Amino acid sequence: MQLSRKADYALRAVRYLSSLPKGTLGSINAIAEGESIPREFLAKILKDLTMSGVLTSYQGVHGGYCLVKKPRDISFLDIIEAVDGPIHINLCTEADGAYCEQVGHCPIHGFWIAQEKSFKKALSAQKFSKYARKRV
Amino acid sequence: MQLSRKADYALRAVRYLSSLPKGTLGSINAIAEGESIPREFLAKILKDLTMSGVLTSYQGVHGGYCLVKKPRDISFLDIIEAVDGPIHINLCTEADGAYCEQVGHCPIHGFWIAQEKSFKKALSAQKFSKYARKRV
Repeated sequence: MQLSRKADYALRAVRYLSSLPKGTLGSINAIAEGESIPREFLAKILKDLTMSGVLTSYQGVHGGYCLVKKPRDISFLDIIEAVDGPIHINLCTEADGAYCEQVGHCPIHGFWIAQEKSFKKALSAQKFSKYARKRV
Repeated sequence: MQLSRKADYALRAVRYLSSLPKGTLGSINAIAEGESIPREFLAKILKDLTMSGVLTSYQGVHGGYCLVKKPRDISFLDIIEAVDGPIHINLCTEADGAYCEQVGHCPIHGFWIAQEKSFKKALSAQKFSKYARKRV
């Protein structure tokens, strides 16, 4: 019951890019160094974030990555689901009857549905404009 | 970011035992059948729950398992942590500085600390007296 390391790194990478001045690209080396993320793992994460439309990548010596949307329009939920897929807090909220035949009349199932909704709401409310670093 | 299958089965097993009349033992076969849990996996879970003091086991032909405490005194948090260990919603809430050197001044860390606290509080508030099945 823990955020994946991949999602944690993705949040930190997007936080890094959120902190750059408008129009500035972040290179993979700068993000890796700035957020202490292993470079090879970061490359996979940046690829996923680009494929899912969160980032745009620019090739070349002066290439790098930038956010497609403004930091205030990107939430933690967007980033976690971009790299790990939809959040399902229990197997029964993911697969419904396919995982457990009791799902239609199980009060514990109702608890998990409510927790999942509440957790996703909290993640959705966290926008990167709030978490951008102050550059000195 | 999902409850383990082991913890989900453990909750269902304890819910089953919470539903039995006082003084009645639940056999492994009855729990496995009643909650649709694979028997071998259930055996490991019941062993963990016994080792951690949630259940008492009685050997013999008429043996089985019963709860050590009353259902109203057992929470979802007790059971999940008994089988999976302490809940840490992100690596940084588990290992603090050992995982991430930014932990002391990272606003995202503060968010995860708050989410973990809120989630554990919700799990702690769910007692099995509320979830025991009505026996017909």
